[in-house]
Amino acid sequence: MKVMVGGTFDPLHDGHKRLISRSFELAGRDGTVVVGLTTDAFASRKVHPVRGYEQRRAALAGYIREQGFAASYSIEPLRDRYGSALDEEFDALVVSEETLPIAHEINQLRKEKGRRKVDIHQITCVLADDGRWISSTRIYRGEIDVHGRLLTAGEEEGR
Amino acid sequence: MKVMVGGTFDPLHDGHKRLISRSFELAGRDGTVVVGLTTDAFASRKVHPVRGYEQRRAALAGYIREQGFAASYSIEPLRDRYGSALDEEFDALVVSEETLPIAHEINQLRKEKGRRKVDIHQITCVLADDGRWISSTRIYRGEIDVHGRLLTAGEEEGR
Repeated sequence: MKVMVGGTFDPLHDGHKRLISRSFELAGRDGTVVVGLTTDAFASRKVHPVRGYEQRRAALAGYIREQGFAASYSIEPLRDRYGSALDEEFDALVVSEETLPIAHEINQLRKEKGRRKVDIHQITCVLADDGRWISSTRIYRGEIDVHGRLLTAGEEEGR
Repeated sequence: MKVMVGGTFDPLHDGHKRLISRSFELAGRDGTVVVGLTTDAFASRKVHPVRGYEQRRAALAGYIREQGFAASYSIEPLRDRYGSALDEEFDALVVSEETLPIAHEINQLRKEKGRRKVDIHQITCVLADDGRWISSTRIYRGEIDVHGRLLTAGEEEGR
């Protein structure tokens, strides 16, 4: 199966890892995963600072290599919410609860363009120890680490 | 992965087959698929007549056997929209565009019960030759066959 997934992936946290792992699992041994990685211009809309594209790309590719997934993959620049998902032929889009609306927008826009709608695989966001979603913003704020562990005031002072 | 899917599956058409095949693909070689099959009482809400549970069960099990899927499976009675999906521990729910709202209801209800939300895999409905969804209702009305081929007036007379 050919699967598409997208994000800024900075820092690469357990929620991102779940999204990426599931994409490869869904693609299967003979499949392909296309990972859209937001460009620096597009990522600059985030409320927190984001590392440069090449650094983020290296971290993402490093994780994918470490996991030894069987499917082939490519990482491509994502300049807007949709990237090549509007025009490319593929089977399924993998999104989180947070980005699910984008998947529905993509299918609506594909339909308007006379293209086949794609399957949507929505994963549940990974929860931090306090039961709230792990997010880059929370990590940047120093509330949690990339695994969703709460950083206490004491630990923050100790960093 | 443990996957749940549900339906009335009568007659078993290409849309149902896609739903079932994808569920087994998603479950993977070592996974499990739980197929909820509507009881006769629950299925009687349909606008068209439905064959009895045992007949529908046999057709469904026959299709699964023919395909030779690797994952283990069980077929269990579905007495309402949710069945055991509210309380059981599993990974992903497979739904069609038509039944997607039920998946969101299930996650909402699971959350209210303090249970983990599950991943949602939504497949695109299979289209009939006229570009509209294949559905049991349309098959029952004699508009299309189980593969979505349009039945012309001539063919209908010839049946």
